[in-house]
Amino acid sequence: MNINQKNYSLGTARSVIREIFEYGNRRALEVGRENVYDFSLGNPSVAAPESVDKTIAELVKNDTCALHSYTSAQGAPSTRKAISDSINERFGETSTPDDIYITCGAAASLTITLHAICNNGDKVIAFAPFFPEYKVFAEGAGAEFCIVPPAGDFQIDFDALEKTIDKNTKAVIINSPNNPSGAVLTEQTIIRLAAVLKQKSEQYGHPVYLISDEPYRELVYDDSVKVPYITRYYDNTFVCYSYSKSLSLPGERIGYIFVCNRMENSNACYAAVCGAGRMLGFVCAPSLMQKVIEKNPTAVSDISVYKKNRDILYNALTEYGYDCIHPDGAFYLFVKSPIADAKAFCELAKKYDLLLVPSDSFGCEGYIRISYCVSTDMINRSLPLFEKLIKEI
Amino acid sequence: MNINQKNYSLGTARSVIREIFEYGNRRALEVGRENVYDFSLGNPSVAAPESVDKTIAELVKNDTCALHSYTSAQGAPSTRKAISDSINERFGETSTPDDIYITCGAAASLTITLHAICNNGDKVIAFAPFFPEYKVFAEGAGAEFCIVPPAGDFQIDFDALEKTIDKNTKAVIINSPNNPSGAVLTEQTIIRLAAVLKQKSEQYGHPVYLISDEPYRELVYDDSVKVPYITRYYDNTFVCYSYSKSLSLPGERIGYIFVCNRMENSNACYAAVCGAGRMLGFVCAPSLMQKVIEKNPTAVSDISVYKKNRDILYNALTEYGYDCIHPDGAFYLFVKSPIADAKAFCELAKKYDLLLVPSDSFGCEGYIRISYCVSTDMINRSLPLFEKLIKEI
Repeated sequence: MNINQKNYSLGTARSVIREIFEYGNRRALEVGRENVYDFSLGNPSVAAPESVDKTIAELVKNDTCALHSYTSAQGAPSTRKAISDSINERFGETSTPDDIYITCGAAASLTITLHAICNNGDKVIAFAPFFPEYKVFAEGAGAEFCIVPPAGDFQIDFDALEKTIDKNTKAVIINSPNNPSGAVLTEQTIIRLAAVLKQKSEQYGHPVYLISDEPYRELVYDDSVKVPYITRYYDNTFVCYSYSKSLSLPGERIGYIFVCNRMENSNACYAAVCGAGRMLGFVCAPSLMQKVIEKNPTAVSDISVYKKNRDILYNALTEYGYDCIHPDGAFYLFVKSPIADAKAFCELAKKYDLLLVPSDSFGCEGYIRISYCVSTDMINRSLPLFEKLIKEI
Repeated sequence: MNINQKNYSLGTARSVIREIFEYGNRRALEVGRENVYDFSLGNPSVAAPESVDKTIAELVKNDTCALHSYTSAQGAPSTRKAISDSINERFGETSTPDDIYITCGAAASLTITLHAICNNGDKVIAFAPFFPEYKVFAEGAGAEFCIVPPAGDFQIDFDALEKTIDKNTKAVIINSPNNPSGAVLTEQTIIRLAAVLKQKSEQYGHPVYLISDEPYRELVYDDSVKVPYITRYYDNTFVCYSYSKSLSLPGERIGYIFVCNRMENSNACYAAVCGAGRMLGFVCAPSLMQKVIEKNPTAVSDISVYKKNRDILYNALTEYGYDCIHPDGAFYLFVKSPIADAKAFCELAKKYDLLLVPSDSFGCEGYIRISYCVSTDMINRSLPLFEKLIKEI
């Protein structure tokens, strides 16, 4: 066929998670929805803050001609100011509205950033386990995607990083709190990572950029857990943010890129972000949602349900004998597969209609991911099944 | 600098239209907003249909968790069905929901389609005058962008097309009603274009795709003017639609791609669209707006104001001696520059605070574009200035 073979392949390869989701739908028809325990998806189960929908209702009350109009390509100045102010207040940054590019969600934040900085032959590094689309996005921007294997504690294996990084490395992606492990990178890890990247940038004579993909930033459940703000430790950082999880608005596609203004050639880097947005067709993020963000820059959904779910699930599963990473953030429990083959284990779990995701597609074998952004009731009803499952093995 | 030079250049090159717009803002501070006649922008001046904002208000009244959730990557099945049904009813097509990929607006429709079909070295042809971003999008997808010069009547110069098309031509882009000329391709033109493309496809042994960019489809003002539905004439067609103009929602970024299911290998082409969307980060178009479309699939803003504006402006300008293309659709008047250099003419016009766009950036010299999606009052007040301007020359 005379079309783009790579994109054709991407379009025909079905995602593991989607396969499971569709299996669940078929199974629900057979045994009833309430008897299928679908832990596969990362769709927030908590509603958006009330103020979000109130803002929408208010905005459409009056003349909406301006509301639904194009904004500047990089986003409305007033919305960029609200975002910039919020970053400065919360994290002690000194950003300006001209460092912010409003995007159509997390995927857009990443593809725009990667296209802004990458040339063919560059390398982009991610740490396993990682969101599978990183590979698609990096390769789409012409880069080679390189994986650093996981550290035992799901921090960073710096020896492995040293072996992977080289003069062609353009960027390193981090994701904390992490999908799928729930791990949060500690300040100590960030300080060490920044030192390595600074040293390597000097050695190679060009910046190794840090791309911080942080849609789960606000989803941490214990006061003792801090999520360091990356630009405070490393100037050559692009923060890729999305409101999908903090405001429970994944379908609305709204987020931003913050180009740290202490970055080397930061104005040029911001211009490259604007240019990449233009080339990809990502100009002017959805205007109604820009206004919603502007009026609710620090709102967060009620995440207490996630904390409750995490505690119930973590406590029960460890009691039954499962070996779980304690998730400090995000809404995933990462569990060591009781048998070596995580895929086989997930197949076994289907016998109990427990739908779990094997970790293989996250670049890390031998684990399963359990999304706990589901109803607490479903979690409680699923516990006896998890117990039977491990007893069977 | 060690970033992507091409995207950096795209981000620093300021668009002519934006320059004019910003000049207008500065000028408004000096002489008052009411004394600046900004005809540069294509932002609809007519509100969205009432039903659109009512739908939004209704949707956010109840539990919005599902409303704001991810839909399928290609769009919610129910929304795709509403779009497909509407295409079938209005144009006698036989589309199915699985031929529709919902996008984040017109730019996304085009970049996804181009990335789905293009490989490096392919050629993509457009007819001047054309929307300047076509070049950016085609080159971004690795293609060479080729321009067919305008025909006298702004239909198609088929001799020029024959000279430009060759075995490396992957696609031809049409845009009818046209930005900036306002011309509508006649059925006769479409029939002849289809015949040429069929013949060339056979000759080259691969389809030459037709990409029909049609955000202005509904914006025609006379019963005698028909906008033929392209797939009815040529199977290898991707229809790239956006609701920006028909529903006055340009900021909300919602549109779709219809992959004609009689296209050669149409399933593979649709898969390539899905894959390109995935690679670019364009999955799941804004979910609230998907619902709005689903509930208002055939609504159109009240475009009678545009017709009124067109008639006032066209009649007055031709009376003053301007040589204007009669615009059958869109909301632009394309006027032959009274002096050879259209840029110089637009500079002259600034003396009267008339802000017009020279045609050079549309791949066609010697014309000016006047956007009449402005208030009728502003048009009426501007007429004596247009008269003085041409008298001065």
